Amino acid sequence: MSSAPQINDPDALVLSPDPSHPANLIPELCAAFYKLGWVTGTGGGICIRTGDKVYIAPSGVQKERIEPSHMFVLPYPQPTTDRIFLRRPALNLKESACTPLFWNAFEQRNAGSCIHTHSQNAVMATLLWPGGMFEISHQQMIKGVRRGGNGLALSYLDTLRVPIIENTPNEEDLKDSMAEAMERHPEAAAILVRRHGIYVWGDDWQKAKTQTECLDYLFEIGVRMKLAGLPTVLN
Amino acid sequence: MSSAPQINDPDALVLSPDPSHPANLIPELCAAFYKLGWVTGTGGGICIRTGDKVYIAPSGVQKERIEPSHMFVLPYPQPTTDRIFLRRPALNLKESACTPLFWNAFEQRNAGSCIHTHSQNAVMATLLWPGGMFEISHQQMIKGVRRGGNGLALSYLDTLRVPIIENTPNEEDLKDSMAEAMERHPEAAAILVRRHGIYVWGDDWQKAKTQTECLDYLFEIGVRMKLAGLPTVLN
Amino acid sequence: MSSAPQINDPDALVLSPDPSHPANLIPELCAAFYKLGWVTGTGGGICIRTGDKVYIAPSGVQKERIEPSHMFVLPYPQPTTDRIFLRRPALNLKESACTPLFWNAFEQRNAGSCIHTHSQNAVMATLLWPGGMFEISHQQMIKGVRRGGNGLALSYLDTLRVPIIENTPNEEDLKDSMAEAMERHPEAAAILVRRHGIYVWGDDWQKAKTQTECLDYLFEIGVRMKLAGLPTVLN
Amino acid sequence: MSSAPQINDPDALVLSPDPSHPANLIPELCAAFYKLGWVTGTGGGICIRTGDKVYIAPSGVQKERIEPSHMFVLPYPQPTTDRIFLRRPALNLKESACTPLFWNAFEQRNAGSCIHTHSQNAVMATLLWPGGMFEISHQQMIKGVRRGGNGLALSYLDTLRVPIIENTPNEEDLKDSMAEAMERHPEAAAILVRRHGIYVWGDDWQKAKTQTECLDYLFEIGVRMKLAGLPTVLN
Repeated sequence: MSSAPQINDPDALVLSPDPSHPANLIPELCAAFYKLGWVTGTGGGICIRTGDKVYIAPSGVQKERIEPSHMFVLPYPQPTTDRIFLRRPALNLKESACTPLFWNAFEQRNAGSCIHTHSQNAVMATLLWPGGMFEISHQQMIKGVRRGGNGLALSYLDTLRVPIIENTPNEEDLKDSMAEAMERHPEAAAILVRRHGIYVWGDDWQKAKTQTECLDYLFEIGVRMKLAGLPTVLN
Repeated sequence: MSSAPQINDPDALVLSPDPSHPANLIPELCAAFYKLGWVTGTGGGICIRTGDKVYIAPSGVQKERIEPSHMFVLPYPQPTTDRIFLRRPALNLKESACTPLFWNAFEQRNAGSCIHTHSQNAVMATLLWPGGMFEISHQQMIKGVRRGGNGLALSYLDTLRVPIIENTPNEEDLKDSMAEAMERHPEAAAILVRRHGIYVWGDDWQKAKTQTECLDYLFEIGVRMKLAGLPTVLN
Repeated sequence: MSSAPQINDPDALVLSPDPSHPANLIPELCAAFYKLGWVTGTGGGICIRTGDKVYIAPSGVQKERIEPSHMFVLPYPQPTTDRIFLRRPALNLKESACTPLFWNAFEQRNAGSCIHTHSQNAVMATLLWPGGMFEISHQQMIKGVRRGGNGLALSYLDTLRVPIIENTPNEEDLKDSMAEAMERHPEAAAILVRRHGIYVWGDDWQKAKTQTECLDYLFEIGVRMKLAGLPTVLN
Repeated sequence: MSSAPQINDPDALVLSPDPSHPANLIPELCAAFYKLGWVTGTGGGICIRTGDKVYIAPSGVQKERIEPSHMFVLPYPQPTTDRIFLRRPALNLKESACTPLFWNAFEQRNAGSCIHTHSQNAVMATLLWPGGMFEISHQQMIKGVRRGGNGLALSYLDTLRVPIIENTPNEEDLKDSMAEAMERHPEAAAILVRRHGIYVWGDDWQKAKTQTECLDYLFEIGVRMKLAGLPTVLN
């Protein structure tokens, strides 16, 4: 069985000289996201799935200072209802509290990566769009977002709509309302969480990242437009 | 014929130890523009023309992570109406969708470089100046902009005027309206595209870049002034 | 007596190849805080206490350019009412004027680190909350703050409250009012100083830093909400 | 005569392995100022005087990309009314257009360094304080500014006052009005130029830089306070 050597030496799952290995990419991307203001104060992060393995960062740590050896590796799909790991870091760490929410993106959209940010642009958007949906139209950056996060790109003539769900005291408890919102809105490329942040997914980390950049840009300019008294949706 | 070795080894067109080679400069500059918020989410970029060769980045990729080997090289002028390449990257990439718009700058202003940004300062300017022209006067940074983008520098006493054209669903379809705006406004140093961004050109990449910095600064301060109720043009 | 070699060679207290040594961490963290806008113009900084030794940066220097050899080392607790040093830099430097305020955090909360910033988000919060307390509720980032700075983390359902004390012409004179505010508000994780900045502490530098990030985020979004006319505390 | 070798080999004036040599510091500091938004689009910069020599960057170049070999060196004081150089770069460059204004700081305040920025915080301050003086009180950062730029530090109880002069089409023509404002306001630590930027000086580059940081912070928070309807001077 090919997974035997991994069980014998689980550290081989995260130690690689290849900078594009998920265990190297996640620390690099988290440091970049910190500079963008997306993952300060231990919040937020990115997970990467490569076929049957999921790489996830620890919970409650400085996201701009994680190392490959801090990484958790989980099998996908999970074989039982208990959470199973292929590799855990030696340190006394817990996997990211976002894990069940990342799983929504894998299971419902076959995502290869999912990003969670606490960006103030996203949070301000949830405050200035008090209903259940952020909407903006007629912005070039809309073209960088894909239908459902994994389909064809939107057109400049499409209105971008991102569902907003209500926050819960425990991050894990968002799993069901996020799953439900994804099911009800199959064209949604991301889910906003009021007073909290956003979850964005894509076929791979590159698509998840560029879509997060486009969405964050659209939240920022949408907020600026709304505060300037400009309409954010044209007919 | 001197171009023969290039046809034999097109990679020699983009592989150089010289950091000022266009194939090295474009990745470096795009990474710098990413930090400025000009080219997030795969949008925006810079092309460089050195006499009879044009260096262009790929479309739809993370602009802060491109490499010299990703570069397209095109002959200038184009010998036929079909698009001809001297070199294409080995990967399955498409040249930037801005290519026809960059060509406007080469053909109409003999530019050596053209920059396209999605800067929010530019986009906010197109929203707060709803007509066909952004205007600002009495700002020192106006002196960093050249008449027509390639002429003498403006004076502090000149009013800066940047034409605004309407966006189109396909970036290529901006070619004609951009060309027309450039012809109608021979003193314009750049063309704003409403709800999209800006195209700025110059005799070389240094002049294109410093003019983009000056214009971006002027859009930013113009927007701040307008929102603060200050007049942006004095008599 | 084990401290004898330290008295013989006090520089050994600050010269270490280990990047996690406090004398190496403080310069690195101050440079990072400079990029965040927390410690410009010589103001602000961080101190670290490891058991019976306190590492403190000099006063009145560029905080993003300090070096391990600039560090002061003090014994903790201080054996007399005069200030005692285990090591002083060779240069003509004075220890940070924040030293007595850092001591409040050690003595009252057993802190292992204390951070002082002049962040504009903190200062704007003290201006827009003119009373004695900054308050915000229903923000995910509240969960990154601990009760009293060293206790259990707050819940999403808790209202974050940070006492605001009035500034004094001499930084040292803040000692008593800061101590009194900490005593009166045992759940406070930090003390804001009106028109000046903030003091934040934690069990170690990591917790002090991540709590400062969470608080700074909450001041920033609180200010943005207040200026947008949004309520910052929900019932 | 000791200056003979310098005349024989003027490049020795700018080539040094010492990172604290002015010809190395100026490029490093200009790159740092670019990141702060102080010197974009070729505008702004810093000069350093060490006794009888003044080091000045070229005019009209990208300030974040200058090199030690681009530096001009001038004798101080200038022996004649014609401008004399100890060293000029080999390239076809002109010395900074700020040179006469930097000279005001040397002659009137015996400065060792002078910084010129186009910071939007400074420019917005000149727009929102339409009279001849920017004023702010009761801010901790005021303590980082020295009387006259080279005297004792201001106290928290002092009101910071920075004179504002009107801009002129040619930068050189500011020399007289700047000199006059410095003479009329001996306590001024800097001179703002309306719709243009600021000149700040100090005994050495460190003091010039930290004072510029404090002033820029005060302009930024002053502008934010004014736009929020808060009074910027208390009695």
